[in-house]
Amino acid sequence: MKAARLVAYNQRLRLEEVAEPEITGPHDVIVKIGGAGVCHTDLHLIQGVWAETLGVDLPYTLGHENAGWVHAVGAAVTTVQVGDPVIVHPVMSCGTCLACRRGEDMHCENLVFPGLTVDGGFAEYLKTNERALIKLPPGVDPADVAPYADAGITAYRAVRKVAPLARPGTTAVVVGVGGLGHIAVQLLRELGNATIIAVDTHEGRLGMALELGAAHAVRAGEKAVSSVRSLTGGRGADIVIDFVGSDVTHRQGVEMLRKGGTYSIVGYGGQLSVPSLAMINNEFTIVGNLVGNYSELWELMQLHAQGKVKLHTSRYALDEVNAVLERLEHGQVNGRAVLVPA
Amino acid sequence: MKAARLVAYNQRLRLEEVAEPEITGPHDVIVKIGGAGVCHTDLHLIQGVWAETLGVDLPYTLGHENAGWVHAVGAAVTTVQVGDPVIVHPVMSCGTCLACRRGEDMHCENLVFPGLTVDGGFAEYLKTNERALIKLPPGVDPADVAPYADAGITAYRAVRKVAPLARPGTTAVVVGVGGLGHIAVQLLRELGNATIIAVDTHEGRLGMALELGAAHAVRAGEKAVSSVRSLTGGRGADIVIDFVGSDVTHRQGVEMLRKGGTYSIVGYGGQLSVPSLAMINNEFTIVGNLVGNYSELWELMQLHAQGKVKLHTSRYALDEVNAVLERLEHGQVNGRAVLVPA
Amino acid sequence: MKAARLVAYNQRLRLEEVAEPEITGPHDVIVKIGGAGVCHTDLHLIQGVWAETLGVDLPYTLGHENAGWVHAVGAAVTTVQVGDPVIVHPVMSCGTCLACRRGEDMHCENLVFPGLTVDGGFAEYLKTNERALIKLPPGVDPADVAPYADAGITAYRAVRKVAPLARPGTTAVVVGVGGLGHIAVQLLRELGNATIIAVDTHEGRLGMALELGAAHAVRAGEKAVSSVRSLTGGRGADIVIDFVGSDVTHRQGVEMLRKGGTYSIVGYGGQLSVPSLAMINNEFTIVGNLVGNYSELWELMQLHAQGKVKLHTSRYALDEVNAVLERLEHGQVNGRAVLVPA
Amino acid sequence: MKAARLVAYNQRLRLEEVAEPEITGPHDVIVKIGGAGVCHTDLHLIQGVWAETLGVDLPYTLGHENAGWVHAVGAAVTTVQVGDPVIVHPVMSCGTCLACRRGEDMHCENLVFPGLTVDGGFAEYLKTNERALIKLPPGVDPADVAPYADAGITAYRAVRKVAPLARPGTTAVVVGVGGLGHIAVQLLRELGNATIIAVDTHEGRLGMALELGAAHAVRAGEKAVSSVRSLTGGRGADIVIDFVGSDVTHRQGVEMLRKGGTYSIVGYGGQLSVPSLAMINNEFTIVGNLVGNYSELWELMQLHAQGKVKLHTSRYALDEVNAVLERLEHGQVNGRAVLVPA
Repeated sequence: MKAARLVAYNQRLRLEEVAEPEITGPHDVIVKIGGAGVCHTDLHLIQGVWAETLGVDLPYTLGHENAGWVHAVGAAVTTVQVGDPVIVHPVMSCGTCLACRRGEDMHCENLVFPGLTVDGGFAEYLKTNERALIKLPPGVDPADVAPYADAGITAYRAVRKVAPLARPGTTAVVVGVGGLGHIAVQLLRELGNATIIAVDTHEGRLGMALELGAAHAVRAGEKAVSSVRSLTGGRGADIVIDFVGSDVTHRQGVEMLRKGGTYSIVGYGGQLSVPSLAMINNEFTIVGNLVGNYSELWELMQLHAQGKVKLHTSRYALDEVNAVLERLEHGQVNGRAVLVPA
Repeated sequence: MKAARLVAYNQRLRLEEVAEPEITGPHDVIVKIGGAGVCHTDLHLIQGVWAETLGVDLPYTLGHENAGWVHAVGAAVTTVQVGDPVIVHPVMSCGTCLACRRGEDMHCENLVFPGLTVDGGFAEYLKTNERALIKLPPGVDPADVAPYADAGITAYRAVRKVAPLARPGTTAVVVGVGGLGHIAVQLLRELGNATIIAVDTHEGRLGMALELGAAHAVRAGEKAVSSVRSLTGGRGADIVIDFVGSDVTHRQGVEMLRKGGTYSIVGYGGQLSVPSLAMINNEFTIVGNLVGNYSELWELMQLHAQGKVKLHTSRYALDEVNAVLERLEHGQVNGRAVLVPA
Repeated sequence: MKAARLVAYNQRLRLEEVAEPEITGPHDVIVKIGGAGVCHTDLHLIQGVWAETLGVDLPYTLGHENAGWVHAVGAAVTTVQVGDPVIVHPVMSCGTCLACRRGEDMHCENLVFPGLTVDGGFAEYLKTNERALIKLPPGVDPADVAPYADAGITAYRAVRKVAPLARPGTTAVVVGVGGLGHIAVQLLRELGNATIIAVDTHEGRLGMALELGAAHAVRAGEKAVSSVRSLTGGRGADIVIDFVGSDVTHRQGVEMLRKGGTYSIVGYGGQLSVPSLAMINNEFTIVGNLVGNYSELWELMQLHAQGKVKLHTSRYALDEVNAVLERLEHGQVNGRAVLVPA
Repeated sequence: MKAARLVAYNQRLRLEEVAEPEITGPHDVIVKIGGAGVCHTDLHLIQGVWAETLGVDLPYTLGHENAGWVHAVGAAVTTVQVGDPVIVHPVMSCGTCLACRRGEDMHCENLVFPGLTVDGGFAEYLKTNERALIKLPPGVDPADVAPYADAGITAYRAVRKVAPLARPGTTAVVVGVGGLGHIAVQLLRELGNATIIAVDTHEGRLGMALELGAAHAVRAGEKAVSSVRSLTGGRGADIVIDFVGSDVTHRQGVEMLRKGGTYSIVGYGGQLSVPSLAMINNEFTIVGNLVGNYSELWELMQLHAQGKVKLHTSRYALDEVNAVLERLEHGQVNGRAVLVPA
């Protein structure tokens, strides 16, 4: 089958023929890919940002935001059948460690992360396990929902964590209204009651944010902090969720906060740096977010089915993967790009 | 009356005669000081660390950890009477802003903080308000409990926040077993179920920690991180509470954490600096803590009355204030030093 | 001034001239009534349902859902001025007991409840205290918002408590879409993500529920339980909030529940009766609700100001109080009736 | 093998030879029983109290509180090996339904409950599944810990739910200090900070409660309510956990509560009956409890390993099952009786 593989850091992905994955364990499932979302993390993986953290040998196939149809199942699989349309939770968790038993799939002690630690879904077929799969209702095209598998679930978990703080009368800032941020704006609207302020460099994305539920749109830049302060009567925001994750947004994210406020980090790559005097005098909380659990993806799919959350996607052929990655790097993708095998 | 006042930054406090405070509002209360605890924050105030944040004009009287007897009351005061022994919550909150109505005294919009923003308790008398006072039971000497008013309440709030995470099978690290830390070890034992690891530079304080409920004692230094990892089967700690707050402890505090772990900051002065990749890949949470609420002080006094928490204190005359501050700076105070007016 | 007073149980209120209330304490406030909502609790008070519980001597003036303008203030009042339009939290809390310090106004140890335990707002003037008042923005007519002061806040607290359970994919039933229930449907829509089922005897109120956010409308009666089970795939509802409170709705409310479900009681008068085998085998939770806190009323007013919650009210002259009570008893009031002094 | 089976309601169990259970599914595990606790639910099962709820055909083997050694494993089992000593979580959950994915094992949609719905552990061998097993450390005798599998976990879950309410200064009542209650007293001491009041009919059990952490012991009977009120300054208890579950304890449990209090039901058999006026005027919460999750059993085993919780058990031969059940019915078992196959 055809696959887009990371062969060396800081090089374009190589499109090549590889063997199809095979069932080896009783709970394995092979999914025929319907669509695979393209994520900033793919850029980071190519740049080697994760190299030391993951310690994975190259080459391997990227793609961690997948949906498609069940193609083959292991001997003990009971909950899906060949042909079922499915969305693929991004990790293969073991189901038996304590984290799994508590529903904390991302903290599984035996985690396998296709597209990060083993072959992912920029290909025709993906190997995952039964625990990763949620069946789609009839009539839903996997390529239309694939971005929920990572962009969606990550935004969902980040918003879910701060939602109890987003009481009426509070303010929440979304920094970066891209693939994840445009979902987060909608989720803040649905899960919380804060007044939403969107911050982005791009006028079109700010317009989209206003349509999706933001009350205010602020152009990113040095004045962003004073704009947020001004919109909050000088107090600052109760919540800031940062989908960019640069040195600048980390600094500004904290500066935008109100006393007692919470800064939630989703985007990454920069250095968070705060004097501890500010941390204690303002009683700030800073929260990291790592994708989300199976049940969170299930809940998000309910909101989608009810029409409460909508994805902005654009489709590309798998062959176009390098061109799409380039557009993403230059901020030229609105919503989320999805690769579809020919 | 005699008072120890900050006249210029980086100078010794000046002991001088000043006018006694007077009742001016209907809810004012004048407290005759029985004891005033000496805190690292007093050192920071003298060093000017807070100068920009507080913007207060010098001179003024330090001392924010006070207990004593009611000396005079305003016209609308109903809950205390002259002569009542009291512990003094460190801030004067308004009672009418939304934060106060929610019980979040430290986030009062009209906060006055004796010893930080107005005259404090290194003196014979202190002016506060009715809302700050908790009556002591008969027979309790105010000087014996004064450190609960700041060291105690701050440890209580920090531990209370992480207590739901301190489930059986988890590990919590207390970095710094001084005035606050020795209370925190006891509170972790009482409010949570984590295995407690104490980290300190000083053998005597580590011994005290083991007596107060710590399961392990680790000598501070470069090997502290690997010691904690080793004691937790390589995973790291679920919770780290940092009562030191230096650049080194901020770095180590995060390095000690388990995936999904929480780093709680009480001590301050250093710079917190973490790559956001680590924040998201490990899904860390970082929590700042600011003193505590009235009801938290009340709860702590219940634990004290039940004999569940004990203070280690040593008494000094108010005249000795500068010598005591010097000892504190050099790590030569065990537990908490309390100043008693002659 | 004119007031509508309960002179004897099971008799019509007597409209009579009484002395205007006067300031006696430093935090007292006299409010000129702009509107006073009429509540089922007024019917219960007249019927003597509360007689033993409250132990109050007759006669006194009813009316616990009030809004108007500040008419006079005590010496220590600082947060409102004569002429300010205000909504009146239904209780006078002391502000100094532990419950008040925790923000739990309804559990104040020194609670005074105008309209239940002392003279209320079915009159031209009401005596309350500073802590009970929230200023209205310019241009808001007190009579339009008065029902938030009790019907609104009670619905808000009940919904707030179950909101964390109302995750996407769950179902919540509102039994009784009257003065409180029609607000609760809107609040479930705003604070939670459950699919909402409204149950009522009255076609018009069911239609209103569908407009306000309910997905399904079910006619009250013996088939209501099977209808709810059918709408939930046989499982039952995750949440039932009962605004009626009769023997029948208490029985049905529990029968509608899913395993692990929560039955929340707001309406009262009946007897709750459940075998404990059912309580444990289904792991049910049953929650009583008592009005709401000051901060909950403040939050509700924010939702109102943002246009997220709307009241259905109809105005009557204070003189018509007995006719209005009769209409309410016969289920002939849609939304909430508000009495306005001439 | 020998097994004690329920052949007809209201008859003694019949000890008979039955076929050993066999592996049929890939995750099945056969456990050689080391000990099986005897529970009031066994009495209820014999009396037919559960007949309608469970709808199970007789005969079958009772025993839902089991520990032993792994005897045989299915083809896909990876986490235990033949010979491992294990404690058996009481239910076989599927691991794939949403409740399982959230860690809520007891709400599994495909729940199988050995000893209630299929053959249990009053026998030499028990069939369960991999998900039910927690390995015991070397040197722990399964018969010594078997009661944690149901009595322990049920007490743990009930106490865990109320623990956030058991803040310093509160009071918690434990009604019934038998097999579950004597664990609950210890868990309240470890997980919470309430002052504990134990209520029982039996002097010896009250003495045990005082040794295990209760501050006060109250003799069950009509005066129990007034005793609790008296011990709480007239206010009533913040928390009551009822391990008896009769009509009388249900009535008294509610009467013992403070305003805002929580009544938690574990024992069952009686009828809970409360006027809804009392539910709302006092803002009571009533909580049903159903055994506990896998992770809760794991946590409890940590507390056991740390010596924080101790079981009081007495061993009997499996042949003595009917005599033991009789003793239990007459309140003549202290702590928990455990049956051991010959």
